[in-house]
Amino acid sequence: MEIPSKLLEEVVEHFASLPGICRKTALRLALNLLQKDEGSLERFGESLKSLKSRINYCTVCHNISETEMCSICSNSKRDKSTICVVEDLRDVIAIESTQQYFGTYHVLGGCISPIDGIGPDQLTISQLEKRVASGGIKEIILALTSTMEGDTTSFYLYKKLDSDELQITSLARGVPIGNELEFTDEITLGRSLLQRVPYKNNFSNNT
Amino acid sequence: MEIPSKLLEEVVEHFASLPGICRKTALRLALNLLQKDEGSLERFGESLKSLKSRINYCTVCHNISETEMCSICSNSKRDKSTICVVEDLRDVIAIESTQQYFGTYHVLGGCISPIDGIGPDQLTISQLEKRVASGGIKEIILALTSTMEGDTTSFYLYKKLDSDELQITSLARGVPIGNELEFTDEITLGRSLLQRVPYKNNFSNNT
Repeated sequence: MEIPSKLLEEVVEHFASLPGICRKTALRLALNLLQKDEGSLERFGESLKSLKSRINYCTVCHNISETEMCSICSNSKRDKSTICVVEDLRDVIAIESTQQYFGTYHVLGGCISPIDGIGPDQLTISQLEKRVASGGIKEIILALTSTMEGDTTSFYLYKKLDSDELQITSLARGVPIGNELEFTDEITLGRSLLQRVPYKNNFSNNT
Repeated sequence: MEIPSKLLEEVVEHFASLPGICRKTALRLALNLLQKDEGSLERFGESLKSLKSRINYCTVCHNISETEMCSICSNSKRDKSTICVVEDLRDVIAIESTQQYFGTYHVLGGCISPIDGIGPDQLTISQLEKRVASGGIKEIILALTSTMEGDTTSFYLYKKLDSDELQITSLARGVPIGNELEFTDEITLGRSLLQRVPYKNNFSNNT
């Protein structure tokens, strides 16, 4: 049986176009919205309509920001010589929550993925090159997801940026803390063996 | 770290207010929306804004419908003497997909749940009573979820509608077809033992 309302069908289709939401979940969400008061729906709709046109990005790191320069880039206490390259705002939030990083960020806005039509030009790679070219940068930390797309993007950036003056690092990969060895996938376990570290390094807390 | 944009925060809060969507998922959805083109966002927002005011309900069964009377209520082939009472459109879709039911529906719009401030007056119970009072109804099938709220609502309806002329039935509860006994919860298994049926009934296909 089809959904007996074009308007509801439209809302369901919009929800179902979002990642991880199937048509059944989309219908559940849409029917739940019908239970809300009209004012709340009005505000939801209005904020969606203006989302793309009214959102601003930091001119330096391209993270989402209300101001021209985000709170991290404009913070004089942050180390401006280190740039951590991430995919989007969620990664910035994740890294900030560790309280172990005091440098700045560069938000790419995605990863190179030819299948989805995303090439280097769709990302903020040229802006990163300009930041590096303007001088004062000592280290680039590549903190992209370890997927085909993430690894491709990391390698592309490495090839573009590699120079004697610049240290390019990536996040350590290995067995997550608290994980049982038997449930760790063999690629991660294999790499953590190859890249084993001196035991005493575990006591140092340098960032 | 907080979300560095009030507008984005607003969208995230709206998404997070939906069932089964946490703040992390809400942020993922909102960031995904930012990748879509502006026209699509505009349409999504517009359809949400008008959803509640522009949606229509069938005047007979109160299901969502574009027309005054839905396609099921206006279908002369459907058995108008049997009413299946369900919570919302999703249940109608689920029952229709079985192709085993040829009566009509009555969509309550929820279940009695004092904790959520939903009493009998917030549901279409009085309209159901009117339908029954207008005559010609032989059977009411209570097809509500077997939760505290669903069972309360079923019992309330039974007490309201019970009469000598009306047969009130409920869905059979038991071990789902294909399920292993060892993984069936003990309440379902217990009830399926108490309400065991003659084996030959499994061959009959009466609806």
